[in-house]
Amino acid sequence: MAQNIYDDPKFFSGYSQLPRQVQGLAGAPEWPAIRALLPDVADKRVADLGCGFGWASRWFRENGAVSVLGLDLSRNMIDRARADTNDAAIEYRIADLNTLELPEAAFDLVYSALTFHYVRDFGRLMRMSHRALTHGGDLVFTIEHPIFMAAAHPHWIEDEDGRKTWPVNGYSTEGERRTNWFAEGVLKHHRTLATTINTLIGTGFTLHRIEEFAPTPDQVAAMPELVEEMERPMMLMVSAHKN
Amino acid sequence: MAQNIYDDPKFFSGYSQLPRQVQGLAGAPEWPAIRALLPDVADKRVADLGCGFGWASRWFRENGAVSVLGLDLSRNMIDRARADTNDAAIEYRIADLNTLELPEAAFDLVYSALTFHYVRDFGRLMRMSHRALTHGGDLVFTIEHPIFMAAAHPHWIEDEDGRKTWPVNGYSTEGERRTNWFAEGVLKHHRTLATTINTLIGTGFTLHRIEEFAPTPDQVAAMPELVEEMERPMMLMVSAHKN
Repeated sequence: MAQNIYDDPKFFSGYSQLPRQVQGLAGAPEWPAIRALLPDVADKRVADLGCGFGWASRWFRENGAVSVLGLDLSRNMIDRARADTNDAAIEYRIADLNTLELPEAAFDLVYSALTFHYVRDFGRLMRMSHRALTHGGDLVFTIEHPIFMAAAHPHWIEDEDGRKTWPVNGYSTEGERRTNWFAEGVLKHHRTLATTINTLIGTGFTLHRIEEFAPTPDQVAAMPELVEEMERPMMLMVSAHKN
Repeated sequence: MAQNIYDDPKFFSGYSQLPRQVQGLAGAPEWPAIRALLPDVADKRVADLGCGFGWASRWFRENGAVSVLGLDLSRNMIDRARADTNDAAIEYRIADLNTLELPEAAFDLVYSALTFHYVRDFGRLMRMSHRALTHGGDLVFTIEHPIFMAAAHPHWIEDEDGRKTWPVNGYSTEGERRTNWFAEGVLKHHRTLATTINTLIGTGFTLHRIEEFAPTPDQVAAMPELVEEMERPMMLMVSAHKN
């Protein structure tokens, strides 16, 4: 059973006030980069693993997906997603990605945003996702970047010139990382970039493209605080294909 | 024209005393990991881009390669490689990878160790390498890892627990990096991991595997100073295939 931090009242209260939860996809600066990785979703059957409040699930339907299955570990999330959605072609269900089984060849797109780093066994998750996809299907996901996650104390420091700098240590030591983020001891699983990529390829996916999110000059002009995201990538974005 | 730091007498003198130059491949802790990425080289025609003293070029021949073309920008390197090699099937030539053209479909393996980060236009280099390979050919290379290269001041620091920590900043700002390594102002070109991977895929290569070098427990037992390499990857290793 995964740690269910999203149903911790203190965590949920803080998390719900993030711009991306209040404004939805428009509040997530990486969304344009995700869109560029996504295939045309018209007439596609989509699984949204870690759907949260359902912002992306609804976007898929608005853009022509024939059906969306949104899954999340958190009852809070699923309750809110259901309340905010009026669409019989979107089904929301509580599910633990550590043990989830999806029907075989039932989806054209498996999508996940900032969720897979909570999953302990990435190999199992990839094999299950690969089976759940049809041939020609796509897998698009984002995770916290291993550069962001690796260190024992992941927070900004300054270099000798006073420049914002991110510390990296323990990069090659994979496993649990605990951080304080709206609640204490939030549990994540650090994997190297090589492990993530090689697991995908070993499962049978063809890697299509990766992105390490950095804001565009226009985004920095509109939100100057985003400039620090140029210093180190917070997010890894992956697009892969099942032949 | 690339910076030719290897023909700077001070640089060359220091560089020549590195364990990997004195002992050859046995002095490079990443060599077992490279070997695991290499295809069987028996009966293969190999291009060794940035061949240095020719250690790998000779290894390819000892392992059955039918011919090896070793290229390096440095006259010092090529002179020494020729002096150390007694094998008519290995040809060494001075060449600048920024402008190199190889004959089309003339090689079964393009190999390069710790050289491509000196090359300004990685896209051109990949297109040229792809053309130079036969169908079914392989590209295997190592470069300095972008985590290692990104920062303005790339050196060990300590975190609040006194743990060895590597600083990252400027990761998403690609371009020149100058460091002092046996000589002042050694010029390298920083590219994100995404740029390296996406350039390969965009050129037509299928990514086979990547590694971010970390020592094995046996290596750390034999050379305890290697343990710091667990904190951050110094080297990215890539294996790709031309279909």
